[in-house]
Amino acid sequence: MARKTAKINVVPQAILETASNLFIRRGYEGTTMQDIALELGISRSALYYYFKNKEEILASLTEGLTIAAQQLASQVVEQGKAPEEALRELVHQHARLILFRPVQFRVVERAEGSLPEAQQKIAESARRILLQKFTEVIQRGIDNGRFRLVNAKMAAFAIIGMCNWTAWWFKADGAKTAEEVADMLADFSLHALERGEVKKGMKVGVDESLRMLEENLSQLKEVIDSQGRIRE
Amino acid sequence: MARKTAKINVVPQAILETASNLFIRRGYEGTTMQDIALELGISRSALYYYFKNKEEILASLTEGLTIAAQQLASQVVEQGKAPEEALRELVHQHARLILFRPVQFRVVERAEGSLPEAQQKIAESARRILLQKFTEVIQRGIDNGRFRLVNAKMAAFAIIGMCNWTAWWFKADGAKTAEEVADMLADFSLHALERGEVKKGMKVGVDESLRMLEENLSQLKEVIDSQGRIRE
Repeated sequence: MARKTAKINVVPQAILETASNLFIRRGYEGTTMQDIALELGISRSALYYYFKNKEEILASLTEGLTIAAQQLASQVVEQGKAPEEALRELVHQHARLILFRPVQFRVVERAEGSLPEAQQKIAESARRILLQKFTEVIQRGIDNGRFRLVNAKMAAFAIIGMCNWTAWWFKADGAKTAEEVADMLADFSLHALERGEVKKGMKVGVDESLRMLEENLSQLKEVIDSQGRIRE
Repeated sequence: MARKTAKINVVPQAILETASNLFIRRGYEGTTMQDIALELGISRSALYYYFKNKEEILASLTEGLTIAAQQLASQVVEQGKAPEEALRELVHQHARLILFRPVQFRVVERAEGSLPEAQQKIAESARRILLQKFTEVIQRGIDNGRFRLVNAKMAAFAIIGMCNWTAWWFKADGAKTAEEVADMLADFSLHALERGEVKKGMKVGVDESLRMLEENLSQLKEVIDSQGRIRE
């Protein structure tokens, strides 16, 4: 039993990854179970032990991304944190999900038409919930005056899109790590939504106030520096 | 001659649109020239008058998006406007390009592997130039102090991704027009990059910077005060 669990957790990721690479290279229709087994260096029967057919692999890929994204987002929102913090976590988690599986994400986008209708609906509903969670947190930020007055749903689409598109450019062996990219996207989203004026405003806590002081201080240093006063 | 020009400008867009819809529904491989002619309600020879084969349709779709995007961006940058204004235009134009042809954009993304290698390279180079133009404008904004200190290339990827992803959610008959979405994305990008306090111009001198520090300091005092001196 323990052994089977280990197998189920470990082997399928390798299968999903290899299958994804083949689906991208040759297309979903152009790839057979035989191709996947060959590429993995395992027998067809070993592959069939995990997945009954190609469709099941695709369903598993889709689930691993869309349902996982929905669940992660729901968990964050349930924690009831302040909108800034909740949004930061939402972006961070969603981005990480894709940054660690960019090829799989692209396969899911491309091949979704090949999924049985019932499973397309499940994925569709998971995406809708993800969008709702982002929208909800942004709307909460607007309502309590921390975020600018924007259309919350459109802002949610913009942010999710920014995360999703990493699947088309992020390289795991590139100059930035997945964590750094996720941080940057969270930072970018927050800056896009936070109201400048409120920064001077009332409800900032001690931490936020200190952060602003530090920011201003380093800015002052920059100004002085650029005037050549510090280096003398 | 005038007549032919008119044809070339008008008819191919309808062909490209119909072909795109079929490519998305049935896959690029699963669609024939015959299918496209049928769907358009024209004869196969009429279709062949415009496009020699399916590949040519795909090449035309790709060109219409990637090369057009690169050219639009290059034109904006050549105008040498201030970074804020240039970025606003870059986002606006790029977003519009996709918002008016979302299905075509998704076809190009999906079927690029089906393009002849030479044309894949052309598209790749157009995308690289697009990224460079965005990066250049953002970097200029950072250098002259209007934008925050961010990694310009990553910010460019984030913004382009936000625009590109509209192809997956924007509906022409939805609550927002393409223009409204493009405006929102431009606004979102600018807010993400502009330095809040410095919006008035980073040419803030030492005096202004000191004033801001004092303001922040008194604000911090207020916050601490309101918390009962950190709850002693």
